[in-house]
Amino acid sequence: MKKINIGLFGFGVVGQGIYEVVRKAKNANAEIVKICVRSLDKPRSIERSWFTDSPDEILSNPDINLIVEVIDDPAAAYDIVKSALLKRIPVVSGNKTMLAHHLPELIEIQKTHHVALLYDASSCGSIPVIRNLEEYYDNDLLLEVKGILNGSSNYILSRVFDHSDTYAHALAQAQELGFAESDPSFDIEGYDSLFKLVIITVHALGVYVAPVRIFTYGISTIHESDIRYAREKGVKIKLVAQVVKVSDEHFTMFVMPEFVTPDKYIYSVDDEYNGVVIRGECYDRQFMFGKGAGSLPTASSILSDIMARQHDYRYEYKKQNYLQLPEYTTDIPLRIYVRYSETNIPHILDFEKIHEEYYCAESSYVIGDVTLAELLRKREQLNGHDVFMANIPLFFQNN
Amino acid sequence: MKKINIGLFGFGVVGQGIYEVVRKAKNANAEIVKICVRSLDKPRSIERSWFTDSPDEILSNPDINLIVEVIDDPAAAYDIVKSALLKRIPVVSGNKTMLAHHLPELIEIQKTHHVALLYDASSCGSIPVIRNLEEYYDNDLLLEVKGILNGSSNYILSRVFDHSDTYAHALAQAQELGFAESDPSFDIEGYDSLFKLVIITVHALGVYVAPVRIFTYGISTIHESDIRYAREKGVKIKLVAQVVKVSDEHFTMFVMPEFVTPDKYIYSVDDEYNGVVIRGECYDRQFMFGKGAGSLPTASSILSDIMARQHDYRYEYKKQNYLQLPEYTTDIPLRIYVRYSETNIPHILDFEKIHEEYYCAESSYVIGDVTLAELLRKREQLNGHDVFMANIPLFFQNN
Repeated sequence: MKKINIGLFGFGVVGQGIYEVVRKAKNANAEIVKICVRSLDKPRSIERSWFTDSPDEILSNPDINLIVEVIDDPAAAYDIVKSALLKRIPVVSGNKTMLAHHLPELIEIQKTHHVALLYDASSCGSIPVIRNLEEYYDNDLLLEVKGILNGSSNYILSRVFDHSDTYAHALAQAQELGFAESDPSFDIEGYDSLFKLVIITVHALGVYVAPVRIFTYGISTIHESDIRYAREKGVKIKLVAQVVKVSDEHFTMFVMPEFVTPDKYIYSVDDEYNGVVIRGECYDRQFMFGKGAGSLPTASSILSDIMARQHDYRYEYKKQNYLQLPEYTTDIPLRIYVRYSETNIPHILDFEKIHEEYYCAESSYVIGDVTLAELLRKREQLNGHDVFMANIPLFFQNN
Repeated sequence: MKKINIGLFGFGVVGQGIYEVVRKAKNANAEIVKICVRSLDKPRSIERSWFTDSPDEILSNPDINLIVEVIDDPAAAYDIVKSALLKRIPVVSGNKTMLAHHLPELIEIQKTHHVALLYDASSCGSIPVIRNLEEYYDNDLLLEVKGILNGSSNYILSRVFDHSDTYAHALAQAQELGFAESDPSFDIEGYDSLFKLVIITVHALGVYVAPVRIFTYGISTIHESDIRYAREKGVKIKLVAQVVKVSDEHFTMFVMPEFVTPDKYIYSVDDEYNGVVIRGECYDRQFMFGKGAGSLPTASSILSDIMARQHDYRYEYKKQNYLQLPEYTTDIPLRIYVRYSETNIPHILDFEKIHEEYYCAESSYVIGDVTLAELLRKREQLNGHDVFMANIPLFFQNN
């Protein structure tokens, strides 16, 4: 079994976890050789001699046969990953923002340069979603991947729902516990879920859709009245990402809060956990559940990718090659709940049908049918206002 | 992508499912060439020209590059699988009984003859347990695999617990719905779970333990009083299989009913579903949930194995090669509930400590600490009597 000599980029929460996990995995035959960090002056938990601030010191070290990149900055991550791949050094990356924006180019480089880029840790931490989509659900039967992909926003919603905590206090707690990204808006506005969904879709259906083309709505504007409404109806509000085949030729995808009924698997995914439902034509629903964030869970997922390199594993992007690729569409009907105060939602959104309208000076709501395309068109008018929106699953057989 | 030409053995519930699933998977580039059945006279849902009753007609057909074996009879399955492997024809098998008894030999043949035997469908139908243990959890961190591996007995327990059905009626229903094996004792006495556990352990820890060495206790002797007792304590009784590392050097494994508290993942695995918890040192718990039996779920798992052969995938039995293999031990303490009538349990079982004893003319019970080795020693004296036994998780951090 060949020895894996790792050049590690980043020594934050995840980087330190990797250091620990690689040491614990005595039989892994993997070793960290050097760690590249932005600042050598910062106090560290291990000896100074491990560190460098020069990426080149790692990239040009011929002993290093794997780059593991877990830095926060997507632009810097992109430079490192691309440079490494162009030099034919395999890379394990956890940077979903970078991957969601650059996957087509990075897939191309992998193919032309016969080099591997693995990134299972980028989506749902310790849950092996990417690997299973690539290797096990690599057939025509897959219809839908849907789940709670962001631990931080889910933690906040759990606190608010099950413990009657305030939103602000729950957010502060999530940050204190290390679940939240350094920029919390990334979690609560749905971008973290979105970027994971983009990556998942490449492996679920073989199609890349740029993040900017996907409707994404977060939880930052949730109010006490939304929570009260959901409680009265016996549902929970969860931030859900989904990619769904709507016909043999088309699929859709979006990220938005959803009213989840107790009979759904994701209803009981609480706190910082992630849960993913994979639905297929013959196997019905598979549910995978686990810790989606945090130092050690993410690091253990990175370890799985590291060990996969012992066997020269690489993603084949099988579905891109052999499935009749479905096309992305936003021309699908949704039933949504929209709560608003100043903004006149029924005036802005072109509802095909309105089922309920409730007016109150402080807070009104409307429940109606609208296309995803319409939501995408009007998203600028919806953002930044006192508006909260949730999907009411109806048109799909949802999980 | 190479074409997979399948010789199929068996056209029962699963065989017919495979026929359907392979047709549905238009892009799979796989085709069934011939189907071997025991009797050509039985009426079939497809044309007679598909069938043969001669195994040799398939085994000596040079066009066939994959054998898929889903017959009921373990002895016949063993002959077919072994013959095919010795001829270097790759095999996909779903026969857990056969595999649990012959894996060491079949692994050896795979290695010496450079041929693949895949069997993800043998354990938990559509849940990709084997593949994930082999490929994703292939490191030192794994501590435990525990779950509900038999859909039929779980269906019966669900009916009895949640719907106040009688045991006999629930069993009859399971058979009617096609969840139960042709010999129902296989399901309800725990052997189906046992054989799956044996296979799982090979891929979880790299160690094969013969079924006869493993304590197995089923649900066939469950009484109304056991159910009442469990309900009073707020727990469910589930038939649970588990393999657990008890130290760096040792692991244990057994199958028996368990009192499951509502905070455990497997508590909510009801009806014919299977649920598996994989626990590791850094990733904590991963939970996988799905349909463990039935025609199409099992067939879709077989399809995953068929498609893996497009890429010449084979199990590497990685852990057998590179982990310091732990040793099997039964020298571990358990706390158990034993309900009995005529048989004098406290007299038979050498309890290390008794915590509760309840006597009643119709049905008594005792709760006490006993070693797994002691249960294994006394199993003959426990079987066939009016005794029901359940594990009370205590000594392990259970799921």
